[in-house]
Amino acid sequence: MSTSVEAAVLAANAAFYTAFRHRDIVTMLSLWCKQGPVSCVHPGWPPMTDRRQVLKSWADILSNPGSPSVHCEAEQVLILAPGVATVLSVEMIGGQALAATNVFVLEDAQWRLSHHQASPMAGSFDPAEDDEIPPPGSAVH
Amino acid sequence: MSTSVEAAVLAANAAFYTAFRHRDIVTMLSLWCKQGPVSCVHPGWPPMTDRRQVLKSWADILSNPGSPSVHCEAEQVLILAPGVATVLSVEMIGGQALAATNVFVLEDAQWRLSHHQASPMAGSFDPAEDDEIPPPGSAVH
Repeated sequence: MSTSVEAAVLAANAAFYTAFRHRDIVTMLSLWCKQGPVSCVHPGWPPMTDRRQVLKSWADILSNPGSPSVHCEAEQVLILAPGVATVLSVEMIGGQALAATNVFVLEDAQWRLSHHQASPMAGSFDPAEDDEIPPPGSAVH
Repeated sequence: MSTSVEAAVLAANAAFYTAFRHRDIVTMLSLWCKQGPVSCVHPGWPPMTDRRQVLKSWADILSNPGSPSVHCEAEQVLILAPGVATVLSVEMIGGQALAATNVFVLEDAQWRLSHHQASPMAGSFDPAEDDEIPPPGSAVH
């Protein structure tokens, strides 16, 4: 486990949320992989794997004056393989907590975003406090 | 792009959904990475990165006689790096469509599950038919 790798991945994750929060479309679009594939699942949306569609979705979201502010908490970095890392976190968007996954791939010595998925979290289930699965209705499976 | 790699990854993805559908706990727990990290976001849940907690969540879900049946549609394989691949798909669970991401890592010549996330899909938004973002309410961002 390399802390310098983790720090670089966390910096890439922070850059994503800074661009998101500042509605900085130019920076946001520059953060995604240019060589490898990209994919994205926005809350409620079907999966997207078309690069142009993914980037357009972010341009649309960040250009929407009604889009709520966002910040990222409780980041956890997992190194899946050399040059591939995941950050799991809790996104807070307009009072809603979402479970977020960002997958980063090292391209040209830069950690670029390959995949983003955010899922609304139900209630206040805390796995650290409760070893059981949440009640039916808070999770489909 | 290697079709043999894609086929092997799709087979691993199919094994996951077969174990899920058959409530085969022994097989399900054997499909996850043993060397590298694992993570999981069930619908409505916070992110889990503790291996024991992830496996226990699946044992609990598969041992629940009320858990609905599942099948997987529209699989798309993305090769992120040598030995790391993602399958995005639509899970159908009890009439609900979920956008699902499975990340597989090659360990001991086997594609093992490193990450699973499923997010309920809203409405019938089809990106192939509509280039615009869905109406507010179907997605938080």
